[in-house]
Amino acid sequence: MNDDKIEVPKNSPNGTVETRFFDFNNFVLENGDILPQIRIAYETYGKLNEKKDNGVLLCHALSGDAHVAGISKETGKLGWWEFMIGPGRAFDTNKYFIICSNVLGGCRGSTGPSTGDPRKNAPYGAEFPDITIKDMVNVQVKLVEGLGINKLFCVSGGSMGGMQVIEWAYSYPDRVVTAIPIATTFRHSAQQIAFNEVGRIAIMSDPDWNNGNYYSGKKPENGLAIARMIGHITYMSDDSMEEKFGRRTRQAVKGAKKLNTGFEVESYLRYQGEAFVKRFDANSYISITKAIDFYDAGNNQDLIKHFYNTNIKFLVISYSHDWIYPPYQSKEIVKVLKFAQADVTYCDISKSYGHDAFLIPHEEQGVLIGHFLDNNYQKYLNRAKA
Amino acid sequence: MNDDKIEVPKNSPNGTVETRFFDFNNFVLENGDILPQIRIAYETYGKLNEKKDNGVLLCHALSGDAHVAGISKETGKLGWWEFMIGPGRAFDTNKYFIICSNVLGGCRGSTGPSTGDPRKNAPYGAEFPDITIKDMVNVQVKLVEGLGINKLFCVSGGSMGGMQVIEWAYSYPDRVVTAIPIATTFRHSAQQIAFNEVGRIAIMSDPDWNNGNYYSGKKPENGLAIARMIGHITYMSDDSMEEKFGRRTRQAVKGAKKLNTGFEVESYLRYQGEAFVKRFDANSYISITKAIDFYDAGNNQDLIKHFYNTNIKFLVISYSHDWIYPPYQSKEIVKVLKFAQADVTYCDISKSYGHDAFLIPHEEQGVLIGHFLDNNYQKYLNRAKA
Repeated sequence: MNDDKIEVPKNSPNGTVETRFFDFNNFVLENGDILPQIRIAYETYGKLNEKKDNGVLLCHALSGDAHVAGISKETGKLGWWEFMIGPGRAFDTNKYFIICSNVLGGCRGSTGPSTGDPRKNAPYGAEFPDITIKDMVNVQVKLVEGLGINKLFCVSGGSMGGMQVIEWAYSYPDRVVTAIPIATTFRHSAQQIAFNEVGRIAIMSDPDWNNGNYYSGKKPENGLAIARMIGHITYMSDDSMEEKFGRRTRQAVKGAKKLNTGFEVESYLRYQGEAFVKRFDANSYISITKAIDFYDAGNNQDLIKHFYNTNIKFLVISYSHDWIYPPYQSKEIVKVLKFAQADVTYCDISKSYGHDAFLIPHEEQGVLIGHFLDNNYQKYLNRAKA
Repeated sequence: MNDDKIEVPKNSPNGTVETRFFDFNNFVLENGDILPQIRIAYETYGKLNEKKDNGVLLCHALSGDAHVAGISKETGKLGWWEFMIGPGRAFDTNKYFIICSNVLGGCRGSTGPSTGDPRKNAPYGAEFPDITIKDMVNVQVKLVEGLGINKLFCVSGGSMGGMQVIEWAYSYPDRVVTAIPIATTFRHSAQQIAFNEVGRIAIMSDPDWNNGNYYSGKKPENGLAIARMIGHITYMSDDSMEEKFGRRTRQAVKGAKKLNTGFEVESYLRYQGEAFVKRFDANSYISITKAIDFYDAGNNQDLIKHFYNTNIKFLVISYSHDWIYPPYQSKEIVKVLKFAQADVTYCDISKSYGHDAFLIPHEEQGVLIGHFLDNNYQKYLNRAKA
């Protein structure tokens, strides 16, 4: 998500929303470790119907949180996918009960490296166990069950959120009716791993990181800001950066060249870095990017077998100018699902924005998702009658 | 340039080469500052002919140096463009007198931030004045004049070297017969500036940078290594990283997932960073990347007028998978030169390597450049007879 200083209208058809918490104990991670206490921050929108079959789970990306829409009671800010959620919007709150939770390992209310380790009465820090995308999904399963929902009508999300969508479809096929993975991949490429790794190295090279034990002192803000800046460049496209900044400098340049005059893109990046460190934890950044890099849904042949004749309806979306999660990765998902004889629709949306496109208000994504959900919801409601 | 641990044959048709030095005083920079003493490290190959009209200047990229071919007497290493230079090679030492110098602002023998400021008997450090690509070229003009050459038969180089080629053609059209800019641009895009800027921030955020005054203490190795790693990812392509590393891990992975097992691409990047800090100066990195980012040959309309009916013959080369200096930037150079009615040949070489392609041994580049030079040299030799 951008930390742009956009003047946002302080009203929303979703009204003011309060983050709530779901707690449970003794959660077994994929690697066998046990987290004795789990707290998951979540928000909901719309109403769960009597049959409890209108639940839609939205999964956030690396730097997101549970506050997906409406005005936050805590911060006064609009949610990260506001334009997609509300009455008459793609995720229509007149029809669906929308759930969004902060991931396990996060730092926005859910259990993660910055929260207290009940065994030592201090934050986990670097001792927080290695988590996986599947662990994140397993925690969401608990939350959804806790809300009384047995089967979700839809799971959707972009980037890391899309990996969670794939994992839901893979591991819990009987609990998902439709799945919408956006700008995502079955597994990170070497290039995607490399960019994340340099970010992690930047954090760990910051003396203030202190092997992850910084919660009582100065935080590794320089390192985390650098990681964020690297990430941010990859979220934009060459074209969108050119449109937004070009070679404009911050002050009028007198004389042919003044090397101490900064380019606008430079101060923008610095601002993004500075804004990010105020709201994000460096250990969470390391923990979550590791989970992303190690995610591997499986090799394509196994995936074809696994998804063969699945009942889940898929809508796969990519963005033309997304070079960090390029369309060829989404096409690979589509190809596997097609070979598995699955019901899959694919659209590459042509936008000059890069990876961030799914978070930037535009019409196509909403129309595609809205129509896909409407059609399938009608069929789903009629399933008993058929 | 890669710092790959490639086993190189320790012989070269270019033999052992010694770096020499060219000194002069009171050099006026583009910004008006004066550097009282200039030393330029350079190497030569082949023989200058009697007419002194067979000189070829090769310009290095950001991290290069004067050691372009042969075995270095100092380090025992082969030059960075060895495969392009020698008897019967593209830059044929049987015909041409090859010159390569370390740029002004560099740290490989030429005057730069790490060399002594004669006014204070200590390295310049961060007080080294802002330099430009044109300053680098102006220093090369002095060197070439010092070697007794009035007009170069060719100027060539890739990336920042290509910017120097463009600047030679722009500012010294009567001193250049042919020009071969490779994988370069008239001016950096916002994306190119952004990647450089994050590298500079990484260096300047390293406490060991100490505002550029680190020559008597610990060097900002962490920051410089991060800058190098960022750069290195941009020099490779998504495809070439996938071919070279994929998702391979360093140790055999027992069990489904082990987050502490590193990916090969991660250790490769760490190695690249560590190797680089041994041979490069952080202040030079800042100084040179600033010169690159601020380089702007001019707007296209002015460039068309400026180059109108130029006598220089151009060969412009780009690489298909180079995403940081993408082919569209080379095509822009070609378009301007075509509108200027210049004699320009263009080739986009299809290779899975990224920006680094011009430095990686392959056949096409040598054949293209060799034939282009042969043809034009024959015409040039016949010019008196015509």
